[in-house]
Amino acid sequence: MKEKKVLKVRFLGGVGEIGKNMTALEYGKDIIVIDAGLTFPSVDMPGIDQVIPDTTYLLQNKDKIRGIILTHGHEDHIGGLPYVLKDISAPVYGTKLTLVLCEHKLKEQKVSDYTLNCVNPGTVVKLGCFTVEFIHVNHSIPGSCALSIGTPVGTVFHSGDFKIDLTPINGAMIDMPRISEIGKKGVLLLLCESTNVEHEGYTMSEHVVGETLDRLFADNVKRRIIVATFATNVHRLQQIVDLAVKHKRKVAFSGRSMLNVVEAAVKIGEMNIPENITVDISKIKNVADKDLVIVSTGSQGEPMSALTRMAAGDHDQVKVGANDTIIISASPIPGNEKNIYQVINNLYRMGAEVVYKSIEKIHVSGHACQEELKILHTLLKPKFFIPVHGEYRHLKKHVKLARSLGMKETNMVIAELGDTVELTEKTIKSGEKFQFGARYIDGLSIDDTQTVVRDRKRLAEDGLIVAVCCVSDYSGEIMQEPDIINKGSILSEVQVQEAKRIVYKTISEFDVKAAVASDMSEIRNSIRKNLRNYIFKATKKNPMIIPVITEV
Amino acid sequence: MKEKKVLKVRFLGGVGEIGKNMTALEYGKDIIVIDAGLTFPSVDMPGIDQVIPDTTYLLQNKDKIRGIILTHGHEDHIGGLPYVLKDISAPVYGTKLTLVLCEHKLKEQKVSDYTLNCVNPGTVVKLGCFTVEFIHVNHSIPGSCALSIGTPVGTVFHSGDFKIDLTPINGAMIDMPRISEIGKKGVLLLLCESTNVEHEGYTMSEHVVGETLDRLFADNVKRRIIVATFATNVHRLQQIVDLAVKHKRKVAFSGRSMLNVVEAAVKIGEMNIPENITVDISKIKNVADKDLVIVSTGSQGEPMSALTRMAAGDHDQVKVGANDTIIISASPIPGNEKNIYQVINNLYRMGAEVVYKSIEKIHVSGHACQEELKILHTLLKPKFFIPVHGEYRHLKKHVKLARSLGMKETNMVIAELGDTVELTEKTIKSGEKFQFGARYIDGLSIDDTQTVVRDRKRLAEDGLIVAVCCVSDYSGEIMQEPDIINKGSILSEVQVQEAKRIVYKTISEFDVKAAVASDMSEIRNSIRKNLRNYIFKATKKNPMIIPVITEV
Repeated sequence: MKEKKVLKVRFLGGVGEIGKNMTALEYGKDIIVIDAGLTFPSVDMPGIDQVIPDTTYLLQNKDKIRGIILTHGHEDHIGGLPYVLKDISAPVYGTKLTLVLCEHKLKEQKVSDYTLNCVNPGTVVKLGCFTVEFIHVNHSIPGSCALSIGTPVGTVFHSGDFKIDLTPINGAMIDMPRISEIGKKGVLLLLCESTNVEHEGYTMSEHVVGETLDRLFADNVKRRIIVATFATNVHRLQQIVDLAVKHKRKVAFSGRSMLNVVEAAVKIGEMNIPENITVDISKIKNVADKDLVIVSTGSQGEPMSALTRMAAGDHDQVKVGANDTIIISASPIPGNEKNIYQVINNLYRMGAEVVYKSIEKIHVSGHACQEELKILHTLLKPKFFIPVHGEYRHLKKHVKLARSLGMKETNMVIAELGDTVELTEKTIKSGEKFQFGARYIDGLSIDDTQTVVRDRKRLAEDGLIVAVCCVSDYSGEIMQEPDIINKGSILSEVQVQEAKRIVYKTISEFDVKAAVASDMSEIRNSIRKNLRNYIFKATKKNPMIIPVITEV
Repeated sequence: MKEKKVLKVRFLGGVGEIGKNMTALEYGKDIIVIDAGLTFPSVDMPGIDQVIPDTTYLLQNKDKIRGIILTHGHEDHIGGLPYVLKDISAPVYGTKLTLVLCEHKLKEQKVSDYTLNCVNPGTVVKLGCFTVEFIHVNHSIPGSCALSIGTPVGTVFHSGDFKIDLTPINGAMIDMPRISEIGKKGVLLLLCESTNVEHEGYTMSEHVVGETLDRLFADNVKRRIIVATFATNVHRLQQIVDLAVKHKRKVAFSGRSMLNVVEAAVKIGEMNIPENITVDISKIKNVADKDLVIVSTGSQGEPMSALTRMAAGDHDQVKVGANDTIIISASPIPGNEKNIYQVINNLYRMGAEVVYKSIEKIHVSGHACQEELKILHTLLKPKFFIPVHGEYRHLKKHVKLARSLGMKETNMVIAELGDTVELTEKTIKSGEKFQFGARYIDGLSIDDTQTVVRDRKRLAEDGLIVAVCCVSDYSGEIMQEPDIINKGSILSEVQVQEAKRIVYKTISEFDVKAAVASDMSEIRNSIRKNLRNYIFKATKKNPMIIPVITEV
């Protein structure tokens, strides 16, 4: 019976590098899932659209799942939800904006069987043996929450993504009083995000961005202004709208996700756009440059985004020129630097002025820096701590930070994907590993084994050679000179001839008639081997070799 | 005759993004080439090893070329030299370390027909109508020079790569007195590097790195220390060796390029390694952790480098563990962030401590920041200015910086690859474009057309499908059920069957017998089109389709 008294925290995402946020709490016959995020593919996953957590563990335990709790509406916390709900039926809980964004995704993915339950900060939900309280925090999207979860072994506090903003745009600061109360009552385990743990001090207030933008609006009175930012940063969008009102400009939104989020945010009252201030992007020709601000997606240089199309001269409505000031109100997410700088270079080439973060304070992070993390740790005084939401180096630093506040090394665990951490009222320890692997979304298909990506990487590095030959299934005779087709690999005419000769010679050395009757794979393997040896010697490359032997 | 009085500055590299440093000065029947660099491929050039400038212009004018001048020994200034010297015969001029590094490259590339002329700072070389004076500057490799070039229309000053270091490691500060003298005599044109033009103030002295390293050595007395840095940063290596002496540690070098550079630098007296301080990497088992510092390549997370192999547990001699402190004495070059962070994460996983730039001052740039650039502009007071060595955004900022110092907009030109700028004693203007395109080095082959890279990108995104069919050249009959081979693309069994059916149906609709007699390309195109339509509808992907029809 002792076995039952263990709380299992299972990491399906959000620790280490690949696979974003998804954590499960399991106690006896109850499981709750916190977040269901996705990752955008890195350069070593060519062609892949999205990466989502493997849900095998959830599928195997689907009857235990009491609910899916969403902390906020960012892709890395909700993007995997449609895929999870295709396999698993469980009620979903989140704040208003979070659920509106989910609904849109579920519709796109044609998922119809779901229950979305809207909560507010302060709401307490009972799910099996768990009680989940939503607590308001500051972040770069409205409706962000931390979670205080009552479990049979004690309180688990999950920070969600947060920062401490003393002058937030909508006036509601992170709920420090409630967090203090929870701390006083005693917290067994803290799960805290680690994104900015390498940064000293405090994250600047969102307010600072408004001040910089205000000055830039004033400095550019005669020019058209284009601001690129994250679509989901509704408070940033609100500040831009407010400045447009102040500086007597019309606002046009560009980019599909921007239009979606603005529409949703206005509908639920998270955004306030005065009448007659907006103009459709297709009508901007009727507005003078000095009277217009365009708010656009593409702050990360994403290939098909509005700003990237503007920079390439491919945007139907916006032609960039010398009278444009383009403000990129974002930081490059690691891995996106080259793309965004290419966009900036091209905008400059078109004669525009470009303002970006290395020049002006036009972006602030949504994540807590060191001093803010220390405040959370200090208010909650948890017995145990597991850092989440970061690469391994961040988790490691976060453990150091907790140690500097007096936490014992033995009371902390760094978890990786597929790890279970087991807790009792008095102990924390690493438990069993469970099946884990990322799932790659590729168009309408899912690559669970990653063989497709492996093949693509090989094809990308070295290209391929198709070696074609036709043999008689009657006589075993080679019916025709072999053919060599090479794509993505460089072969001279002489090398192609030699490759053909090698294919011919390889086949000739076999008893083809016998092989046709039983198995051609040995011949194919020999062709592969002999061609590979020759090609590598001649070109120092290892193209994929596909032998095609037709039997007639 | 007026035509002759024009100096043409031609940009084969070093402006805009792709293709690193190479500039030609042409006057009448004389050409000199400044630098012959290469670029490392970005992620959108899969499988490519190096990118070098197109030398068509140089080939077309090979009889005019009086010399190739190298400012310093970094890859982006000398890496293309072997390829240039395969096509063009011209004497090469550079300082000692630069030429030793070139010799190594020329040997590797089996180029034997060359003349390397060693110069010192202060040397003046006469090449046709040009006189080239080498001027000592500070940079992250010894033997770096700026160039003061006498031409029939006036003096052209080329900054090379530089910074102003008041406390350099070997004691020789940038030759400000000589630069001041040249400025006094009058400079027609300044070509100045732009790498750090977005950074305010001054670049820190190399000395600062030594101070940080000294403290880190003192803090880690009982631990093994591994320092990863750029092999060519000889002054950094010298500082590490000096600290090893001070802290009584042996030094082991790891990584091919590290060993090459150290050997070369010692040979020519640029580096001073006391006897008995070094230990071969294969012998480090005999040295206690506390008595050893390993100096390694891989500060950029390069896939095959020593540090990356250590982080993957693949290094034969160095097994990383809990008693290692690993210092990454470098900044990530844009585009390398993901790789280097992956290496850091893995080193942490192995239990090591890792010190990198976001935590400590363990790297300084080799390039001038804004105030240093202003000093050069102010001392030289050039009539005309062309910014070089930077992305377009850097060139644009550099022009702004020059304007802030009083330079007229009409006296500056931003050039791009393939541009010519024409100068007389009194005028500057953009001239004709010349043929320009990057050349991709792929193993032993060169991809001049970039079709191979285009194919690879396509293959990497969407994979490929080979559709195989065999027809009788006698009857036109389909001899066998078509076969479908897919690599890097995901097809269900049902989709494969449907694809086979489509190939069969497509061929059946043709008069195959007639086609065999004349041209099969129409059939192949139809297969490609019909399969593409079906596959895209079924999977939302566009794999490359290779129809193979054998005729027997």
